[in-house]
Amino acid sequence: MELAFIEWLRRRRPPNDMSMSFLGNDAAELPWRAEESCVVTTDLLAEGVHFRLAETDPARIGQKALAVNYSDLAAMGARPVAYFASLLLPRSTAEVVARGIMEGMDRLAARLGGILGGGDTNTWDLGLVINVTAIGAVPQGRSWSRSGAGVDDVVLVTGELGGSLRGKHLDFMPRIPEATFLREHSSVQAAMDLSDGLSMDGWRLAKESGVALELDAEAIPISDAARAMAAANDPPDHDPLHHALHDGEDFELLLILHPADAATLQQTWPFATRLTQIGRVHAGEGIWLRMADGSSRPLPPHGYEHRGS
Amino acid sequence: MELAFIEWLRRRRPPNDMSMSFLGNDAAELPWRAEESCVVTTDLLAEGVHFRLAETDPARIGQKALAVNYSDLAAMGARPVAYFASLLLPRSTAEVVARGIMEGMDRLAARLGGILGGGDTNTWDLGLVINVTAIGAVPQGRSWSRSGAGVDDVVLVTGELGGSLRGKHLDFMPRIPEATFLREHSSVQAAMDLSDGLSMDGWRLAKESGVALELDAEAIPISDAARAMAAANDPPDHDPLHHALHDGEDFELLLILHPADAATLQQTWPFATRLTQIGRVHAGEGIWLRMADGSSRPLPPHGYEHRGS
Repeated sequence: MELAFIEWLRRRRPPNDMSMSFLGNDAAELPWRAEESCVVTTDLLAEGVHFRLAETDPARIGQKALAVNYSDLAAMGARPVAYFASLLLPRSTAEVVARGIMEGMDRLAARLGGILGGGDTNTWDLGLVINVTAIGAVPQGRSWSRSGAGVDDVVLVTGELGGSLRGKHLDFMPRIPEATFLREHSSVQAAMDLSDGLSMDGWRLAKESGVALELDAEAIPISDAARAMAAANDPPDHDPLHHALHDGEDFELLLILHPADAATLQQTWPFATRLTQIGRVHAGEGIWLRMADGSSRPLPPHGYEHRGS
Repeated sequence: MELAFIEWLRRRRPPNDMSMSFLGNDAAELPWRAEESCVVTTDLLAEGVHFRLAETDPARIGQKALAVNYSDLAAMGARPVAYFASLLLPRSTAEVVARGIMEGMDRLAARLGGILGGGDTNTWDLGLVINVTAIGAVPQGRSWSRSGAGVDDVVLVTGELGGSLRGKHLDFMPRIPEATFLREHSSVQAAMDLSDGLSMDGWRLAKESGVALELDAEAIPISDAARAMAAANDPPDHDPLHHALHDGEDFELLLILHPADAATLQQTWPFATRLTQIGRVHAGEGIWLRMADGSSRPLPPHGYEHRGS
């Protein structure tokens, strides 16, 4: 990490031994509780692929770069411990962009937990690249996976789906508090976060678990943004349900629970964020959509494609 | 991570639950021993800044990207547990470059420990970018730092210094086995790895510890590559000692020990890699060079600058 950037970090952070441990050392040592596993996820975002710096406040880009990683921690049922940010910065605007990015990350971590554990900064003459690695903790051997769904379990989803490109894709709040509550008050059989659209990601979970998911078309929670995009014909001929099923970057949790667990949870759920039962697990494979007339049709898993990738 | 890349990883790796845990999940869960801390380091390498893809085998780039991180783990006294690789690949050669990189990392990890825990792959039309995060383990609260050097301690270094640009900068072997031995058979007071040159990095360690380091000019182990560069006048007017003091990317360990510990260690050191006592810690500040005539002069900390940064 460049000295100037480290000095800036030193000045703005409280003198807290733990969060400062990486400054002036080759790596960070994170104290660890006995009986906890270390959960690790990493995501890289690049100019022109995931964002356009000219159109977007660096703080929003920074917040998103951390949020996509925290969403993965939530999907594993883990609490955030620390994050590590590598920045490859366009030379001409390096300092102001770096500060904006770190402020965006700071803001999210202040709300959801985890400290900046370290990072790396470099400059070059090409586009901005950000890599974030997030470290979480979970009781030993008890992280959630995609492979635990069983026949007759039920399918739930947090929040509302679709239309993320209208703004949520940058400003979404990873479901860390919800995941913590679920871990403490329920028994999640399988989980993942929705990054590529419900149809694509649901298909992946069904495949990992060796089951079929049947979703109830009328139960899918549709966001206002999805309705607005459909009303604006953006893009043409996609109704609100199409957006909710196929749009990417919802970053909501897809959850599989035993039916009795799900029923109890609906009674005790303390969040403003909705929790909706949207379907059921069957023997078989793939993902199916049950229509109002009782018929069921396979849902082709055509999810979101990132711009340029 | 792209599906095709995950499928390639699945095919080539043995069916080992631990190393495969990330495939088909949102993150990796690393089982953790009680009483160990988690040590984390991350480094980003970019085309034109740290390497030139047109001139370098992708496997060597991959090995280096992991090795710089493992060198940081060695500097903390940690053993490698897992590594996470994010690749931003030039679209036209993405697949062959990705495989080369992963093979280079594999090769190093097979020798020094640690499993591939996960990663992220993207393509774009610009230069290759690699970010690696390495996770290590160390007995709780017992990682080495740069701040523990005390007056009358002695200064040691592994290997031989200087001339890394002649090839070692790509193919160096991080001092993981040596660090493990030091942890088990000695009491390291402070440590760091030499990435920016002995003069710059020694100055940093002195600053973090609040002491002065006095190096003995005649004791500095000079590499054959440093002698060859000096003989070739590359660059002009740098003698072998200048290379050993100021060249970057040695990736050797700079170590501070009590004198009695150092003496014992010299008797028991089992490695072909040299371990050389090169100086002593004094009250004061900065880094000093003691000449053959007994005089001592301050050593300006002008270290290595990466191409383009």
